Amino acid sequence: MSGKHQVLFLHRQLEPLRSMLIGDFDVLCAWVPEEFEQAHQVRAVVVAGEVPLDEALIAGMPQLQLIACASTGYDGIDPAWVQAQGILLTHAREVNDGDVADHALACIMAHLRGLSAGDRLVRAGDWASASTIPNRSLSSLKVGIVGLGAIGKQLGRKAVALGMGVRWWGPNAKDAPWPRAQSLIELARNVDALVVTARAHPGNVGLISSDVLEALRPGGQLVNVARGQLVDEAALIAALRSGRLGGAALDVFHSEPTAAARWADVPALLTPHIAGRTKEALSRVSQQLKGNLVAFFSGEPLLTPLLPLET
Amino acid sequence: MSGKHQVLFLHRQLEPLRSMLIGDFDVLCAWVPEEFEQAHQVRAVVVAGEVPLDEALIAGMPQLQLIACASTGYDGIDPAWVQAQGILLTHAREVNDGDVADHALACIMAHLRGLSAGDRLVRAGDWASASTIPNRSLSSLKVGIVGLGAIGKQLGRKAVALGMGVRWWGPNAKDAPWPRAQSLIELARNVDALVVTARAHPGNVGLISSDVLEALRPGGQLVNVARGQLVDEAALIAALRSGRLGGAALDVFHSEPTAAARWADVPALLTPHIAGRTKEALSRVSQQLKGNLVAFFSGEPLLTPLLPLET
Repeated sequence: MSGKHQVLFLHRQLEPLRSMLIGDFDVLCAWVPEEFEQAHQVRAVVVAGEVPLDEALIAGMPQLQLIACASTGYDGIDPAWVQAQGILLTHAREVNDGDVADHALACIMAHLRGLSAGDRLVRAGDWASASTIPNRSLSSLKVGIVGLGAIGKQLGRKAVALGMGVRWWGPNAKDAPWPRAQSLIELARNVDALVVTARAHPGNVGLISSDVLEALRPGGQLVNVARGQLVDEAALIAALRSGRLGGAALDVFHSEPTAAARWADVPALLTPHIAGRTKEALSRVSQQLKGNLVAFFSGEPLLTPLLPLET
Repeated sequence: MSGKHQVLFLHRQLEPLRSMLIGDFDVLCAWVPEEFEQAHQVRAVVVAGEVPLDEALIAGMPQLQLIACASTGYDGIDPAWVQAQGILLTHAREVNDGDVADHALACIMAHLRGLSAGDRLVRAGDWASASTIPNRSLSSLKVGIVGLGAIGKQLGRKAVALGMGVRWWGPNAKDAPWPRAQSLIELARNVDALVVTARAHPGNVGLISSDVLEALRPGGQLVNVARGQLVDEAALIAALRSGRLGGAALDVFHSEPTAAARWADVPALLTPHIAGRTKEALSRVSQQLKGNLVAFFSGEPLLTPLLPLET
């Protein structure tokens, strides 16, 4: 009707990107029944990488040739399966690593400097208890980075710039300016804040186990800006409830949205998967997404392809 | 009785320092009646610099020769009056500038990255509203520093290391790597976060006036880690209540403790004057304080004297 190519948004959390694409494409939303009816004729879908891909749905779309993943992570997608369907796959690249690192840094600093604890005391009229806040200098802090990818490296550089000590662990040795711990447990034992920045894949589900949480110093903090399934959420909740762990900041959860009731009385800072969703990053994501879609519909090389895989 | 020199702590907020001095001195607390009874024979008092000095009390202590101010700021004390009494005066120096700067930075980042706003949404089960959080990249942020002393300079360096833009204003031109605004109003107009780090004195009471708050961008943030009297608190509360100002982080208040009721329904991050009170800074403060007291009682030169003033 509009003369524009049709693009189907599969997941509701992509809504903020919609307004940035409607000028160039006829954007259909799968959560709007009358728009979803046109899915059979669509050649390109846009998905959120953390949501398990509905393979039955995809297999039932005869015209589909491109899955454009709006996020860098694509743990909800099995690329081998997509490739077997003969479908192309793109994802976001270098759009928000710095933002995600900054979010983690903000969580570390807010906790370490007692911002929430202080606010609670002032608002409760209990100023006199200020000295009970375990307020520490950033320069005394050791940060442990789990997974030294683009986000982890940016976090390390920024933490060092603020005077913190940095070490890391990942399954593979890497060229890095900071020491790699011998194991994840050893990393947890020697840091004040353990930050998960690893890419999620089927092999590292539950990586932050109860043993790892136990190894963190009493009063230590866990920060997760990667993916919820990397952390044993039940073990984390137990450690926080018992007061053994000093705090946690979670931007990602086992299931999203996470149920509010699950976190009642759990002392943790919870954010709705916003670490990488700054205004500036959304603009970069939509530009890159648009570039991939334009390239696809004109038969040009894709900007940031994940598939076809090299064989 | 103990053979140690007597030292009188005048203000209750000094209590965290007490345990670090009782090994070397006979520490009396003015808020304990039977200890206060011995005030007339005391040669040295320790005070909090932000509390108005009780000059009648001081004038009534015939043996008093030293006032040791435990903080860097000494706005509660009139040095000329102290000097006229022939009493020596010390204060803390270079003990926590970096910590105070870090606290301000943590407040800026927590606000800009929507940590509290996100936590409220998740806990209210309103994940879907995540896109309403005005989440911005640190690299897009401009920080305005009011008063470029030791704290302001550290804040500027750290903000730049995180990619933020920095400008400043103070009454006197200074050698600084960042541009000085032509006026405080012009600074407020051109920044996202205005951070007060100036030394308080009788001439700058209410410096952050309603006009300055009005000049801040809608959605802008005010951070005060200096002294409460530098800000027109009533005007600030009105600006926050109206929703015109995006946020405020206050570590200092007109009167401390501030009344909790004053801040009910005021969207601001309130902390009980803890920016400079890290574990590490308290240790440096107590070491320096002890050094000044030891020097005084042995007739040696004081470590960090404010008086005698040069004449």
